[in-house]
Formats: sequence, C-alpha cells, structure tokens
Amino acid sequence: MFKGQERGDVLIRVAVDTMGGDFGPPETVKGALQGLDTHNIELLLVGDQDLLESELAHYDIKNKPVKVVASVGKIGDDEHPIEGLRRKPKSSILVATKLLKSGDADLLVSMGSTGASMASSVFILGLMDGLERPCIGGPFLGVAPRTVLVDMGSNIDCRPPLMLSFAALGSVFSQKFLGIDNPRVGLLSVGSEAAKGNRQVHESYQLLQESHLNFIGNVEGMDFFTGRVDVIVCDGFVGNILMKFTEGLGTALSHYVEQRLADHLPAAELAKVSSDLWETTNMPRTMGGPLFGVNGMVILGHGSCRASGIAGAINTGVRCVQIGMVDSMRQELAQLSSTEVLKN
Amino acid sequence: MFKGQERGDVLIRVAVDTMGGDFGPPETVKGALQGLDTHNIELLLVGDQDLLESELAHYDIKNKPVKVVASVGKIGDDEHPIEGLRRKPKSSILVATKLLKSGDADLLVSMGSTGASMASSVFILGLMDGLERPCIGGPFLGVAPRTVLVDMGSNIDCRPPLMLSFAALGSVFSQKFLGIDNPRVGLLSVGSEAAKGNRQVHESYQLLQESHLNFIGNVEGMDFFTGRVDVIVCDGFVGNILMKFTEGLGTALSHYVEQRLADHLPAAELAKVSSDLWETTNMPRTMGGPLFGVNGMVILGHGSCRASGIAGAINTGVRCVQIGMVDSMRQELAQLSSTEVLKN
Repeated sequence: MFKGQERGDVLIRVAVDTMGGDFGPPETVKGALQGLDTHNIELLLVGDQDLLESELAHYDIKNKPVKVVASVGKIGDDEHPIEGLRRKPKSSILVATKLLKSGDADLLVSMGSTGASMASSVFILGLMDGLERPCIGGPFLGVAPRTVLVDMGSNIDCRPPLMLSFAALGSVFSQKFLGIDNPRVGLLSVGSEAAKGNRQVHESYQLLQESHLNFIGNVEGMDFFTGRVDVIVCDGFVGNILMKFTEGLGTALSHYVEQRLADHLPAAELAKVSSDLWETTNMPRTMGGPLFGVNGMVILGHGSCRASGIAGAINTGVRCVQIGMVDSMRQELAQLSSTEVLKN
Repeated sequence: MFKGQERGDVLIRVAVDTMGGDFGPPETVKGALQGLDTHNIELLLVGDQDLLESELAHYDIKNKPVKVVASVGKIGDDEHPIEGLRRKPKSSILVATKLLKSGDADLLVSMGSTGASMASSVFILGLMDGLERPCIGGPFLGVAPRTVLVDMGSNIDCRPPLMLSFAALGSVFSQKFLGIDNPRVGLLSVGSEAAKGNRQVHESYQLLQESHLNFIGNVEGMDFFTGRVDVIVCDGFVGNILMKFTEGLGTALSHYVEQRLADHLPAAELAKVSSDLWETTNMPRTMGGPLFGVNGMVILGHGSCRASGIAGAINTGVRCVQIGMVDSMRQELAQLSSTEVLKN
C-alpha cells in the first residue's frame, strides 16, 4: 500500500460489486473490463461465481489482471440495509468491502443499494475519527462540473457539526480532485444574507464561520451556476431531492428538445443532442459518487448505470486513490477536531 | 362583488403595484396595459403619480379603463419587509393592498419584494381562519405544467399542521385552476416509503394520512415529471431552493443548447429554441405565483419579469377571481379545521 502519497502509475486493485445495479453482471462486468483499457488496474470481480464465469466467457481476458472473488447473494434496494447485511454475511457488497479492509483491494466500486453500500462501508471500514456519518459528494451537473455538492447521500436531520464535516470533506475533494485552490464553501439557503434560512442553517453558519474553511456565507439555488462558490453544503434531504429532481428534469428536457427540434435536425443528430443534454444533467451516472468519511476509497454509482457509467466510476476512484484522497480527508477532519469547533 | 361565484365576463378591477420589479414603471405599465387587451379589466396603477403619468403619456389610453392611484415610495428587496411597511405607510404595495381590502379592487398584482408583498397582504387582508402563515403555490415548470408545488414562498421551519394547510390549499388550486378532479397529493421526501424522510416529513405524513385529502404518500424529486402526483408539498426552504435552482439550471441549459447547436441551426431559430427552453424552466416568470391563504386574491411575480410576465400574472389572477379561488380556499381550510386534524 502507498497510503497518502501520489501513487502515479502503480497498479491499483479495484474490487467491483458486480451483483449491484439494475442490470447486474452483464453490465457491471462489461463496464469493469472497459476500465482495464484505460488504467493500470487489477480487477477483483465480486459476485456469484457461476454467473461471473459465464459472463467472462464472452470476453478474451487471457493474461489480463482479472480475478473472480465468490460471494453469495446480494442486498436489494428494497431491503433494509442493516438487516440485509446481517442476514447475508456473504453478500457481494460485504465480501467486496472486506477486500478493501484487508488491504487486498485499494478501491471499491458498487452500483448496488446505496444504503447497503454505505452501511457496509461504515461497519467494515469504519468512520474517520470525528465523524458521525459518511456522506456522498462531488460535482453533479455537467453544466457546473467544478461545483461540488455535499451531501448527496440522503443523510437527514443533520446536526450542525455534521454539516461542518460535510463542508470540510467537500473542500478536500474540491482541492485535491478538481485542483481548486482554497475552495469557496457556501451553505445552501433561501437567501445570501446570514439571517436567511432555517434553524439548521443558522447554527451551521456559526460553526462554518468559526472554522478554518474558506466560508463565503449562504448561497442560493442559482449559485450552482453563478461561479461564486466551489463547494455547496446541504442536508442530505435537500441534496437527494435536488439530485433526483435534476435527473427527472434532465430527462424531461431532453424529450422536450427532441420534440422541439424534430423538424430542424436529422434523426441521428437529434438523438445525439438529446442524449448530450441528458448526460449534462446526470453527472453522477457518468462518474459515480465518492463516499466521503470512511477509512477506504469507495465509489457508489447510480443503479441504472450502464457499462460506461461503471467505467466512469472506476475512473473517478482510481484518481482518488492516486491522489491519496482518503488520507487527505482524514487529516482535514483531524484539523477540524483540533480547532475545537466540533466540540461547541 | 361576486364573491364565491363564477364571475364570467364581469369587469375585474386589478390593482398593480407598478413600483415593484427590477425595471419599475416602464415595464410594469407596459405589462399591465397588455392585460387590458385580453380581459375585461379595469387597471388601478399604483405608484408615484408623476412617474406614472409620464409613462402613460407613451400610450393611447383615451377611453380605456386605466386609473392612476398615487403612492409614495417603495419597499425594496434589500429592506426588512415589516420595518419597511412601518416606515413607509404610503408605499405602493401598502396602497395597492388597501384597494383590495376596501373592495375597490378585486385583484392585486405585484412584482415587488416578495417579503413585503406577503407581509402587506397578511397585515392588511388578514390570514384565512386556521392558517398560521400564507404560502405561494402553483405549477413552476413548463415541462410539468399541471404539477403544483407548494410552498414556494420561503416559509422555513414549517410545523406539520402548516404543511397540511399547504397541501389543502394546493389541492384547491389544482382542482379549481387546473381542473384536476380529486388531485393526488404527495409529500416531497427522499424515498417513497413512509419511513423515508426527516422528522418534519414523518409527522406531516401522519397528518396528511388522517386528512380528507387524496394523499398518496411520499414522492421524490423525479416525481415532478412522472405524472404520479398532482400537488407536491414541501417546506418553503426546499421549495425556494428548487425554484431558484431550476431558474439557474434553465439558464445554463439554454446557453448549453445554444452552443451545442450553433453549427446546426440558423441564428434566429437558435435564439428561439434557447429562449423556449429557458421559458419552460421558468414558469413563475410567465404566470406569476398566486399567494394562498390571505383574504384576497394576490399574485406575486418574479422581480426580473418583463411586460409579458406581468401580463401573465394578471392573466392568472383574473382567472383566479373568475373561479372564486379565495372563497374555495377558505372553505377548504374550514373543512380541515372541522375534522380536528389540525388540533392534534
């Protein structure tokens, strides 16, 4: 392991939960193998052994760094994550997470149940010191690819110290992954003045202002697009609604544009424009959503991802491993704790 | 007055706060006069007398039902609404609201400070019985023109009984204005299951389930576009963020489409497509946002509205007056109170 340093082109071992996602192994295996073509990685494909072997038979993987790691069963979106983990100790997500924990893998990628993947990561890898819950962050809009939103992980009823942690983690991601120096952090609210917002915002505002982060105050819904902020912090209730809303709106607008331009463009070009528009509103499907705050690099993807989305998530994760994201985040949280802000 | 009945083509007297909006009288007067062309209305233009008269001099209004009602000063977006109302008793929004209160107008339209317009309406017109705060509701997306969102009025930290009132008022609007029979009401959350959501959602869910409304449970961000719900209820914190986010995204996407199609369409057609796309994400700018829960019909508009948006807001308001929206809402709240749900 080369924890905490730039890993350059060192081989990175990627555990993929192939049983997750709406399309299962045919799509996850295809996507994972695409990842092989662009990175110096070894694939640890975790899933039902027979299924995986019959899937791999469609590809020429002789001499390629691909291993199958057997697991039994999967935890579905319809199951309670924690109960699922208890009842299915050999499920693909648990086996894959344990590879990361034991040091046999450097990265975990899963398109399975977000709840189960988060719970598995917390139980097996553990939370970073000073953190109450993990979160999901990153850019989520193709039209605002350098604006990080955190939390997209559906953490509800977040207390202000947790909001501060989200801000710190998002800030590290902005700095290390997007190369933004001293990222500007904003708190999502209903007006830019300090007095605007609900109780959670008022209290979080105080903590953010006392912290070492580059806090610029409250920002509003339009500020994803104004370029005045690099990291937008919100409760996972709002983050999840925004993300799903954008997905739906992107789909609706791509249909709208398709109809609107039907008489103006040739069919092939029309389809391309419509799909580009859709993609630009659905960034987590193309790059995955990094899980922040657990002791290991985990990338979660949208269940409906196709192979290219899985390859994109691997791509994101490989870069996170190369730049030592987990260690940087741990250091940032340690700095936050040392400033005592969290103990207020 | 023909309260509570269909007014048909009876003359409707519209008080317009001409001092509001980013462009002031040149735009508000122009928009109001456009309204004259399509409806049987009388205009009461409230504002600085000299300004208004010099503005009206640009139009031929001889024999047209246009009156100027003098006011002094306006309350800006940067002022505290309630302090503004105290300090400026002759401000345009107060004078205009009083015309509605005295029965000299049937409808008030304002593009001025939302906070001041709401406060003026509450103080002068009063809240409907059983209501704690007013809210703003209506469709807000051109791609989902029959889906009502309530609250867009930035009511924060809403208690569950208020959420129930929002649902009831949105339901009346859906039924009366959009003609939707027995509208399906959904609570905006992070998952469709009853257990999903924050504390506010859990408690509001209970109240909604016990009410006489056609409550279908929790809905998610994508459900603005899925057609499974007619009225989506959320705290004004979330509603305001969604509305401003959509505005920003619409603008970003219309730029995106303009660039993406620059080589495919003639310039004039390109500009039209881009502006259509923008409009379809900015519905409150074209039809205004009706204020629900005060004893009078008030339509608020976006400060950046141009004349067509002002005419659109008048259009919305005229229809609301014709169908007796205020009385229907009052009856609905009375029914809610009588079922005791609000007293739990």
